[in-house]
Amino acid sequence: MNLKQLANELNLSISTVSKALRDSHEIGATTKSAVLAKAKELNYQVNPYASSLRKQKSKTIAVVVPEVANDFFGPVISGIESVAQERGYHVLIYLTHEDMQKEISVIRLLQNGRVDGIMISLSEETTNTAHLEELKEMPLVFFDRVPEKLDAPKITTDDYNSGFNATEHLIRNGCKRIAFLSISQNLSISQKRMNGYLEALKKNKIIRDSSLIVSCTGTEEKNNDLIRKLLRRKKRPDGIFASVEKLALSVYEICADLKLKIPRDVKVICFSNSQTASLLNPSLTTITQPAYEIGREAAIILFRLIEKSRHHFLLEQTILNSELIARNSTKA
Amino acid sequence: MNLKQLANELNLSISTVSKALRDSHEIGATTKSAVLAKAKELNYQVNPYASSLRKQKSKTIAVVVPEVANDFFGPVISGIESVAQERGYHVLIYLTHEDMQKEISVIRLLQNGRVDGIMISLSEETTNTAHLEELKEMPLVFFDRVPEKLDAPKITTDDYNSGFNATEHLIRNGCKRIAFLSISQNLSISQKRMNGYLEALKKNKIIRDSSLIVSCTGTEEKNNDLIRKLLRRKKRPDGIFASVEKLALSVYEICADLKLKIPRDVKVICFSNSQTASLLNPSLTTITQPAYEIGREAAIILFRLIEKSRHHFLLEQTILNSELIARNSTKA
Repeated sequence: MNLKQLANELNLSISTVSKALRDSHEIGATTKSAVLAKAKELNYQVNPYASSLRKQKSKTIAVVVPEVANDFFGPVISGIESVAQERGYHVLIYLTHEDMQKEISVIRLLQNGRVDGIMISLSEETTNTAHLEELKEMPLVFFDRVPEKLDAPKITTDDYNSGFNATEHLIRNGCKRIAFLSISQNLSISQKRMNGYLEALKKNKIIRDSSLIVSCTGTEEKNNDLIRKLLRRKKRPDGIFASVEKLALSVYEICADLKLKIPRDVKVICFSNSQTASLLNPSLTTITQPAYEIGREAAIILFRLIEKSRHHFLLEQTILNSELIARNSTKA
Repeated sequence: MNLKQLANELNLSISTVSKALRDSHEIGATTKSAVLAKAKELNYQVNPYASSLRKQKSKTIAVVVPEVANDFFGPVISGIESVAQERGYHVLIYLTHEDMQKEISVIRLLQNGRVDGIMISLSEETTNTAHLEELKEMPLVFFDRVPEKLDAPKITTDDYNSGFNATEHLIRNGCKRIAFLSISQNLSISQKRMNGYLEALKKNKIIRDSSLIVSCTGTEEKNNDLIRKLLRRKKRPDGIFASVEKLALSVYEICADLKLKIPRDVKVICFSNSQTASLLNPSLTTITQPAYEIGREAAIILFRLIEKSRHHFLLEQTILNSELIARNSTKA
């Protein structure tokens, strides 16, 4: 049932029916109610794409994330979706699988009016942001993995403080040789977490040992090799701070394999949103990010940009606090 | 830059430019290449909604799931997205949060041409499927939580066999009083898993005890109360088969609280896609569904329906196998 058929059924012009459906003042009350009754009877619904063209609004936003099968991005998307649903918006999901080329092609795809705004968390491999600078005219919000140098609203957690606190927590529990397992050096979150780690060492007069900073940017297999090598050294670290959960789980597996006891031989702390952290063997000390709230907050700011077209939000930086939850993996 | 502006720049009619961009045989090669060169120079892109209206295709599919922050639906969506990306399709995500009213309103929203096809996994609360029957004209694929009585392609795992095998596994490891923790009785997956459980009891000459079948359909708090009551009984179960992971994790927590040892006092098995199952204390025996493959398979069938408009797939039922991974939580 399209507009033309509906108009035929009513013996009215398309333009009259269209105006009646939009509640135009040009149309009388009797005609309006006749049109609405017939539209209901015939289950006529406005074509969303015709409506988008007319209004130049798609009522759709895009979320671009490295992955969705993940304890962090899952709840973030859930938070975004809850806000979008409240506003009557639709949510498109694009996964980059940590691949900068995919990120570039997704962004290109979104430049032609398909969406009213974009929320993005960068891929690990994203080394430059030229493709994002092309989006100048588009409402755009970055979250968690944000570009340092681009002017746009950004929602992050307190990565520097969290890195500092995680490291101090290990030091207070007796660690003296603390390794830091980082992901991509391109990502500001990784840099900030490491800077917090370095600052905590400095404050506690522990000399920085670059060989304890391990960049785990390869495949799972390669990362596991690096971690295994680290744990087999003569001067093995007595504490490990992993910047993402998957690296901490690798540490657990490799420790089991090498018959190293956590926390006796090595203590472990990591960023994690896993619901099972408290049930692991031993229970895992985590820095937990407010993932759902990050999603909601990012969406709320995006809708402000979309709905008010206010560009003085452009430099807004929102920092939400993470929580350090001490469990057995770091026990003194 | 819209079509009109591009035509002005070229001193051509809108219709000529539009035909040239669509590579129409009515337009000569010289004009075509001039149009394409100018379009590229001015970064002109076809408006996707104008294009959708013309072609009556949105190049968009919808995925309707109970939640996304979940070890099962996360990888399913990843599988769907990988197929959609290969075909140049966009993916809209809608979450029902296990609420039938939300499911109904999402389905209503999708009837007016916004998407070319829908993939859906039912909410726990969905007791009737009238809203789904309204979608008769729409390419539609159900996965995992499928309606029993609706004729549409369905992708599931071997829920009955998995339920049977899980229960036999507990029996073989010495269990005699096996409890089954079910989710919604409305869902066919829950019914089938329970039927497998009942059949395994029967085959092994264990008398069915209805008080050991616990329907965990309430809030987390209420479910925990039911599980706590179950584990505090004089004749406590010696084995628990949980139909979803969150219930098994509750069992772990409540056992710790009641000082019951898994697997000595009670053995635990459950459906789970968690990456941490092997690291839990004790490691958790799971039935693992091929979640990513379910997503891919469901998407492939949906695209067959969309692209070929072939309706003899309507009754297709695809059943993928799950895998029982024995770990310490069920050790004899």
